[in-house]
Amino acid sequence: MKKLKNDTFLRALLRQPTEYTPVWMMRQAGRYLPEYNLTRQRAGDFLSLCKNPDLATEVTLQPLARFPLDAAILFSDILTIPDAMGLGLYFSQGEGPKFERPLRDEWEIRDLSIPDPDTHLRYVIDAVVQIRKALDNQVPLIGFSGSPFTLACYMVEGGSSSDFALVKTMLYQRPDLLHHILDINAQAVTVYLNAQIEAGAQAVMIFDSWGGALAHGAYHEFSLAYLERIVAGLKREKDGEQVPVIVFTKGGGQWLESIASIGSDAVGLDWTTDIGEARRRVGDKVALQGNLDPAVLFSNPEVIRRETAKILASYGQGSGHVFNLGHGISQFTPPEHAAAMVEAVHQLSRPYH
Amino acid sequence: MKKLKNDTFLRALLRQPTEYTPVWMMRQAGRYLPEYNLTRQRAGDFLSLCKNPDLATEVTLQPLARFPLDAAILFSDILTIPDAMGLGLYFSQGEGPKFERPLRDEWEIRDLSIPDPDTHLRYVIDAVVQIRKALDNQVPLIGFSGSPFTLACYMVEGGSSSDFALVKTMLYQRPDLLHHILDINAQAVTVYLNAQIEAGAQAVMIFDSWGGALAHGAYHEFSLAYLERIVAGLKREKDGEQVPVIVFTKGGGQWLESIASIGSDAVGLDWTTDIGEARRRVGDKVALQGNLDPAVLFSNPEVIRRETAKILASYGQGSGHVFNLGHGISQFTPPEHAAAMVEAVHQLSRPYH
Repeated sequence: MKKLKNDTFLRALLRQPTEYTPVWMMRQAGRYLPEYNLTRQRAGDFLSLCKNPDLATEVTLQPLARFPLDAAILFSDILTIPDAMGLGLYFSQGEGPKFERPLRDEWEIRDLSIPDPDTHLRYVIDAVVQIRKALDNQVPLIGFSGSPFTLACYMVEGGSSSDFALVKTMLYQRPDLLHHILDINAQAVTVYLNAQIEAGAQAVMIFDSWGGALAHGAYHEFSLAYLERIVAGLKREKDGEQVPVIVFTKGGGQWLESIASIGSDAVGLDWTTDIGEARRRVGDKVALQGNLDPAVLFSNPEVIRRETAKILASYGQGSGHVFNLGHGISQFTPPEHAAAMVEAVHQLSRPYH
Repeated sequence: MKKLKNDTFLRALLRQPTEYTPVWMMRQAGRYLPEYNLTRQRAGDFLSLCKNPDLATEVTLQPLARFPLDAAILFSDILTIPDAMGLGLYFSQGEGPKFERPLRDEWEIRDLSIPDPDTHLRYVIDAVVQIRKALDNQVPLIGFSGSPFTLACYMVEGGSSSDFALVKTMLYQRPDLLHHILDINAQAVTVYLNAQIEAGAQAVMIFDSWGGALAHGAYHEFSLAYLERIVAGLKREKDGEQVPVIVFTKGGGQWLESIASIGSDAVGLDWTTDIGEARRRVGDKVALQGNLDPAVLFSNPEVIRRETAKILASYGQGSGHVFNLGHGISQFTPPEHAAAMVEAVHQLSRPYH
C-alpha cells in the first residue's frame, strides 16, 4: 500500500493534529459543474451515470481537478440499496427519486431481503475500486449509504414527501412492520458499507436525511438505534489504517448528545447548529463536520470568506473539525464561489492549528 | 364585559393554576372537517372565505361545535399583511400561497408601506368582532399573524420554497434590503395584532413558520430580533384582562433559550423537541404550547391516547402547558381522531394539576 499524500481529512476525523482544517463538500460532484453535466449527458441520465463505473469515476474526480479538496466521495445515490432490493428506483424530472414498487403490503415487507453487494451492487463496488486507482492516493475516498430510516421513508412513501404521512402512519400504527424494514435495512447498509471499505473506501458516511422529521422519542427508536447497530457492525480498520465513520442526521441538532454517543468517529451538522456550542455539547466524543449554509455560496467571495471565518472561529482551536456545507451544494452555485470557500477554509484555518 | 366561561387556556399561558391542561389545534378550522369544505365551497375559494367575515366566523366556530376545545382561533391566513401591501396573494391548486408581485427590485422594497388595519385589513378586524360576538364568552379567541421573516420569505420568493434561495441570497448579499423589509413587516405585524386585540382577540400568536430554515446566527439577527420588537410593542392588557402572546418558530428547538427570552408569555414547540427537556431549559420564563406530531392522528384512538399521555407525562406536574399539535392538523385526519386527542388531553391531564 502506497501512503496517502494528503490524509488531513482522516486525521481530523480521528481528532489527531493537522496543519489546517480539511474541507470537502456534500454533493461536490454535481450539477453546479458544467463538466459534470456533460458527462451526465453522455451517460443519458443520473441513474445510468451511477451505474457506470467509468463515468462515476470520471465525475468523482471532476471537483478535485478544480478545487484543492481534502477528500473525494464516491459518486452514487443514497437509494442504491432499495433499488437492489427490487423496488425499481427512477428519477422523474423535478420530483427527485421515486420507486416503481413502493412497499404497500405486508407480504412485500416480509419478503424483503438483504442485497448481496458483490452481485446486485457490483457497479458500486467496481466504482470504488476504479476511483481508488484513479485517485492514486492523492486524497482519501469516502464511501456512503442512506440510513435505514431514510431508506424506509422512500421505500414506503415511494418518493419524496413533505409530511411523511405513510411512513409515520406505519410507525404509529404498525411499528412492528417498520421495525422489520429497518432491521433489514440496517443489515443491508452494514454489509454494503463493509463491502465499500473492503474495496477501498477510506472513510464512510451514513446520511440520515429524514430522521429530523421524527418526533423526539420516535427518532431515537426508529432512526438512531439502527444507526448505532450499523456503526457497531462496521469494519473500522483496513490494511492497518483506521476507517472513520461519520453519521449525519439533517435536522438532528437537538439530539446531538445522543448522536455523539453511538460510537461513530464524527457527526455531521447542518447549518442550524452553532458548531462551537456543538463542540461544547459533545466534548471529546466525536469530531464534527460542517456546517456552512449552502445558500451562503449564492452571495459573493467576500461574504463567503466572512461566513467561513465565523464557523472556523466558532469551532476554535485544535483538531476535530472537517469543514463542509450543512447540506449538499446547490445546482445553482457558481463554481468560483465553491472555490472561494475552499480557499478561505485552507487559509483562515491555519492559526487554529 | 361578561366573564369568560372557560379561561383555562389563558390561565395556562400565564402559568396560573388550572384544573386540567387546555387544548386547541393549529388549523383546527380546516379541510379535515366536511362542514368546513362545504362553507369553503360556498365562499368559492380559500381567500374569499378569509375575506368574508360571516363565513370566517362560521368556520371559526365549526371545530368548537364538534370538540370541547379550550380556545378558538381567528380564521384567516398568515399572509394577509403582504396582501394588504399590494403584493397580490393568491392560491394555486396544490402549490400553496403565491404572490402576483413578489419583491424583485430595490425600488419595490423601498416603496413598501405599513397597511392600515382599519382599511386594508378591515375584513380581519370585522371577523374578530363578529367571532367574539358569536363565541359569547364560551372560550377565548386567539388572533394571529405570520412573523416578519416568514412574511419576507413569501414576499421575496413569491411562494413556497424548498431552499429559500432568493431570500437567503438577499440575506447574505444585501442584508440592508432584507432588514428594511423586516423592519416594515415588524411594524405592520405590531399594529395589525394590536388592532386584533383592540377588536377583541384575547391572546395572540406569531407564526414563524420558516425561521427554522436559517443558520444559527442568521436566525437571531433576521427573525428573532424582529419577533422581540413586536412583542415589546404589543398591547398586553385589554379591559383589565391580560392578553398573552405566544411565539412559535417551527424548527426552533435548538434556540429555545433565546426564544424564551424575548418577553412573550408562551413559546410553541414542534414535535421534534421533548417538552419535558424544553421545560427544564426555559425554567419559569414562559409557558409551553405543543407538541404532538400531527401524523400521530393518522393512527388510531388507542395510539393517540398513548402518545398524548407521553407528552403530558413529559411536561409533568403543574400549570404552564397548553396542549396542541406541533404543526397544523393535516387535511387527511379523520375528525374522530382529533376528538380522541382532545378527550385524552382533558381526561389524562387532571392528575397533573
